[in-house]
Amino acid sequence: MAEGEGTPAPVSSSAIRMEADALNAFLAEAFPNSASGTRGRVVSAEPGRIVARQEPIETMLRPGGLISGPTQMGLADMAAYALVLAHIGPVAMAVTSALNYQFLRPCLPKPLTAEATLLRLGKRLAVMDVRLYTDDASRPVGQANVTYAIP
Amino acid sequence: MAEGEGTPAPVSSSAIRMEADALNAFLAEAFPNSASGTRGRVVSAEPGRIVARQEPIETMLRPGGLISGPTQMGLADMAAYALVLAHIGPVAMAVTSALNYQFLRPCLPKPLTAEATLLRLGKRLAVMDVRLYTDDASRPVGQANVTYAIP
Amino acid sequence: MAEGEGTPAPVSSSAIRMEADALNAFLAEAFPNSASGTRGRVVSAEPGRIVARQEPIETMLRPGGLISGPTQMGLADMAAYALVLAHIGPVAMAVTSALNYQFLRPCLPKPLTAEATLLRLGKRLAVMDVRLYTDDASRPVGQANVTYAIP
Amino acid sequence: MAEGEGTPAPVSSSAIRMEADALNAFLAEAFPNSASGTRGRVVSAEPGRIVARQEPIETMLRPGGLISGPTQMGLADMAAYALVLAHIGPVAMAVTSALNYQFLRPCLPKPLTAEATLLRLGKRLAVMDVRLYTDDASRPVGQANVTYAIP
Repeated sequence: MAEGEGTPAPVSSSAIRMEADALNAFLAEAFPNSASGTRGRVVSAEPGRIVARQEPIETMLRPGGLISGPTQMGLADMAAYALVLAHIGPVAMAVTSALNYQFLRPCLPKPLTAEATLLRLGKRLAVMDVRLYTDDASRPVGQANVTYAIP
Repeated sequence: MAEGEGTPAPVSSSAIRMEADALNAFLAEAFPNSASGTRGRVVSAEPGRIVARQEPIETMLRPGGLISGPTQMGLADMAAYALVLAHIGPVAMAVTSALNYQFLRPCLPKPLTAEATLLRLGKRLAVMDVRLYTDDASRPVGQANVTYAIP
Repeated sequence: MAEGEGTPAPVSSSAIRMEADALNAFLAEAFPNSASGTRGRVVSAEPGRIVARQEPIETMLRPGGLISGPTQMGLADMAAYALVLAHIGPVAMAVTSALNYQFLRPCLPKPLTAEATLLRLGKRLAVMDVRLYTDDASRPVGQANVTYAIP
Repeated sequence: MAEGEGTPAPVSSSAIRMEADALNAFLAEAFPNSASGTRGRVVSAEPGRIVARQEPIETMLRPGGLISGPTQMGLADMAAYALVLAHIGPVAMAVTSALNYQFLRPCLPKPLTAEATLLRLGKRLAVMDVRLYTDDASRPVGQANVTYAIP
């Protein structure tokens, strides 16, 4: 009683409809109420993969001076959202349907990088893997699996 | 960038379209290749909730004589599938899109009960909570969150 | 190859070591940098169960005027943290090891309530179910499964 | 309130304590009751990564002739278990504490391959990513995140 839904849409190399700059402009307009600095930015976008980054600010820290869990999960969600938009364009109203986050290592208060990759882009659901790290990509601080519903 | 998809379908008290007997007959026909005894059965079905049960057999045990993880996850998946069918009827070809399972306590080789409840029945996705236990429902051996895609 | 770790610690009715007021005081001291109003508060605490609430503010909203996903996940995490502290006391440094969140329905900009219940309190891991809702507990906006590591 | 537990153990290149043959022998002895052919085998083991494979048999199929969800999840769990054993040796009694599985594409009845990689090997928890595919590794049929508790 189990497998993916319907025929998967191919993720071709021509699939990118928005570059990093366009994604950042879209996000800034969509979230005008975000406190300054609280929203990460897209660093690069290519077919099937996006990189986003967040500079930590004081309110993002938890006891011990580490970057808080909700901050990490928020960046993972933003990276996944940008990855979906990059492929389907700015018109669509995509919404998160699930976010599973594994906390792997203490997250030191350094610039936090998120790499999001497409596992599957279907007509109705997009499923993505997101890895978060500070200094060393081979030692991630967290890993997320994020599902977006596509309208 | 996050919340449920579209307008939720109401889960009304008239929502049950298949009772326990009809569900078991449907499952037996759908899975003719299952080795005898390897498939649990639906014990009861009511709006928003189903109970299923599995008698453990030798091949379901892991080292230490406990019921294996895949057996537990299989029963959780079956209970979720039956819960969807009970509400949408036998015609539809629903498929699992995600299953998150938490192993909570050692699962002794006793009859294993699964209680599945609807968290949301949408037009395209059904999300369910499933609790598994042997003797004591207040001390579950596992908990699952299962998402089905509805065609 | 699968079940809970070790012998579970019983969750007795005498298990509460911190009431709601003590939990709120502890959280306020632990997170002095939180912007005012951005942290929910514990409404009630009892053995095995806690209720927390968050009044939404402008910066928590996403396009469409709904409460953002990270805000929902942050409240779920906070409620789970408070539930652990209520049972093990204020000394311990517990950290989230996993948070799985299912977005179920659009989250309107109303006071958001989280009900967290213990699935298992072990010596090393606590696993909790969290339901979030605004008006109607039977129509949750989200459901989380949260695991905390206990030092 | 969130990040990994304790100081992570380094996953060094000298970390492999069991090769594929030793792992298969261990699994055969640990699960003597498995019906013949129902257990996948380890194909290769190296530091931080393992490959396992399962030939589908009749009882693993679901309606439509596809490989069932529990079969996929069982192989993901087995691969994760073998990856833990490869690093900590055959003595330890490791148990699954969580398995999150995303069904991505229909799983055709062909040999099913699982690639498991270590995200973190701690003293108490090991967290792994597992990808399952049949013909094309770049089009996975499923993805799992598996956590094992180490005694």
